[in-house]
Amino acid sequence: MATNRQILLAARPVGFPKDSDFNLVESPIQKPGPGQILVRSIYVSVDPYMRGRMNDVKSYAPPVQIGGLMGGGAVGRVLESNNPAFENGDIVTGMFGWQEYAVSDGKEVRKVDPALAPISTSLGILGMPGLTAYFGLLEICNPQPGETVVVSGAAGAVGSLVGQIAKIKGCRAVGIAGGDDKVAYLTGELGFDGAFNYKAVKDYVGKLQELCPSGVDVYFDNVGGEITDAVLRCINTKARLSICGQISQYNVEKLEMGPRMVLTSLLVKQARAEGFLVFQFADKYPQALKQMADWLRAGQLKYSEDIVEGIENTPRAFMAMLNGGNTGKQLVRIWNEE
Amino acid sequence: MATNRQILLAARPVGFPKDSDFNLVESPIQKPGPGQILVRSIYVSVDPYMRGRMNDVKSYAPPVQIGGLMGGGAVGRVLESNNPAFENGDIVTGMFGWQEYAVSDGKEVRKVDPALAPISTSLGILGMPGLTAYFGLLEICNPQPGETVVVSGAAGAVGSLVGQIAKIKGCRAVGIAGGDDKVAYLTGELGFDGAFNYKAVKDYVGKLQELCPSGVDVYFDNVGGEITDAVLRCINTKARLSICGQISQYNVEKLEMGPRMVLTSLLVKQARAEGFLVFQFADKYPQALKQMADWLRAGQLKYSEDIVEGIENTPRAFMAMLNGGNTGKQLVRIWNEE
Repeated sequence: MATNRQILLAARPVGFPKDSDFNLVESPIQKPGPGQILVRSIYVSVDPYMRGRMNDVKSYAPPVQIGGLMGGGAVGRVLESNNPAFENGDIVTGMFGWQEYAVSDGKEVRKVDPALAPISTSLGILGMPGLTAYFGLLEICNPQPGETVVVSGAAGAVGSLVGQIAKIKGCRAVGIAGGDDKVAYLTGELGFDGAFNYKAVKDYVGKLQELCPSGVDVYFDNVGGEITDAVLRCINTKARLSICGQISQYNVEKLEMGPRMVLTSLLVKQARAEGFLVFQFADKYPQALKQMADWLRAGQLKYSEDIVEGIENTPRAFMAMLNGGNTGKQLVRIWNEE
Repeated sequence: MATNRQILLAARPVGFPKDSDFNLVESPIQKPGPGQILVRSIYVSVDPYMRGRMNDVKSYAPPVQIGGLMGGGAVGRVLESNNPAFENGDIVTGMFGWQEYAVSDGKEVRKVDPALAPISTSLGILGMPGLTAYFGLLEICNPQPGETVVVSGAAGAVGSLVGQIAKIKGCRAVGIAGGDDKVAYLTGELGFDGAFNYKAVKDYVGKLQELCPSGVDVYFDNVGGEITDAVLRCINTKARLSICGQISQYNVEKLEMGPRMVLTSLLVKQARAEGFLVFQFADKYPQALKQMADWLRAGQLKYSEDIVEGIENTPRAFMAMLNGGNTGKQLVRIWNEE
């Protein structure tokens, strides 16, 4: 093993990120010190939230520094352990960043059992996106059997699970996604009751009324913007909105203008909108992961992955994901062990 | 007694209402039938929510019909009772509308004890506005001692009580109102910790940061628009927003455009915004009214009234209130018994 290839943030993106906002550099592989482990990552995750970290804005987490390593989850193998909690050869997941080799003190690193499910699921259905779908739907919205749940970004890592969990809970699940192939996947493979391609439909409200004849009781929002405006026009009294993401707004240079209807809609419908971060439910992760794994084994949850090869392609995979190019979880495989 | 003077809706207002949207008519006074009462109103209430009822839009209540009586709360004296629950001479409050004499079956009519407090309070602090402040703050936001509560429309019937209840609960209370006299009233008379005149201040965010050095934990919103945008920039993690009104948006002909920041703000701050109608707490009215009356008698709550004389001036009182002309509860006295 020669060097550690890393992706650094070269510049803060203005609007949509571009290749030159990232730098691929090579550096020596660090030696793990006392209590530390050396991990070689197999899969690296790219997720929408990372766009926010690239801005120099105070948020729930500090921004990535210019010239700093891009953060992000990964799953890999322990090559060398000086930490009694890990053995050489263990598969582990943690915030190892966009790089091939990471040294970690083992805090917030979780062991993954490769016998249970493919290890890539630790970054998807059995990882942060799965937990986000689980808590964002069940804890924030408390969906009841017979209610209608609409999810935007429905073919993404989180959205595709939200609709399926809604079905498990006896709800009508309706998805909004950007492509006919995605719509076919949602209604064909995943069992959504309805879905539409927002790039092909002009009258979002009319389409929502058709697909949600009893109105919308729960809305899981990944995208914001005009799609959310349309859903707001269809919500029922006492609707609950889980605000998970606003991807349509992540790459604007200046705040987009839209009709002032969010709060009026909440008022007229006695409805509730709540933003959340999955971390606030950290004390309930173990039960949630067990439940998700049970549903997965029982065939009640399905997932798909969109896999790009090579650490050098991580920025492009990230940008493609921001553009909605993926169906299911977007991953980058950076080590092919076999 | 000659005739019943009534204010009818002559036309649906386009934008801000004008005189010609209303008609003053005279009609015979109805005789109460079996089980009914005849009430002569003493005070008529004008409230912001009435603007919404004038539009031909499906909402939580049906719109006023063109040519129909303007609805609204009033308090008056029973002149004739065929209902065993009421006696001639009782003071009662109910949705008697903008008219001098009303016939009612007594449903949702409440007796008022004139010995307890001036009867006009049944339309204000001990009526719907008082209950709105009470439940909208305490039930929707659950403010904790030491937290900062910001209220817009702070000098109105509801807002002025929200800040005082916040103080009773050990919070820092900051009001936003439209006039230096109102600001002086809030901080001088009512004990708000801070307030500012949004018509005189340009940098709302800077002013809020000055008045709320620990950020905003609770926001009780009566107005919406740019004021609310500014508050959103100052909310703390886990903030709660009670959406009571959006008066800045009630008279727009076309939805006003604003920056798409509401849902993004909720997301980043894990915050919650909830619309409510006071009616959803109807089963808890008695306890709340008792509590408000106790605070009133103990001098912990103060109120003021803005009183216009004459049924014929009700539309103008309503329009002045929409323009923020009032401090405290806007009323119209239509019968001077003495």
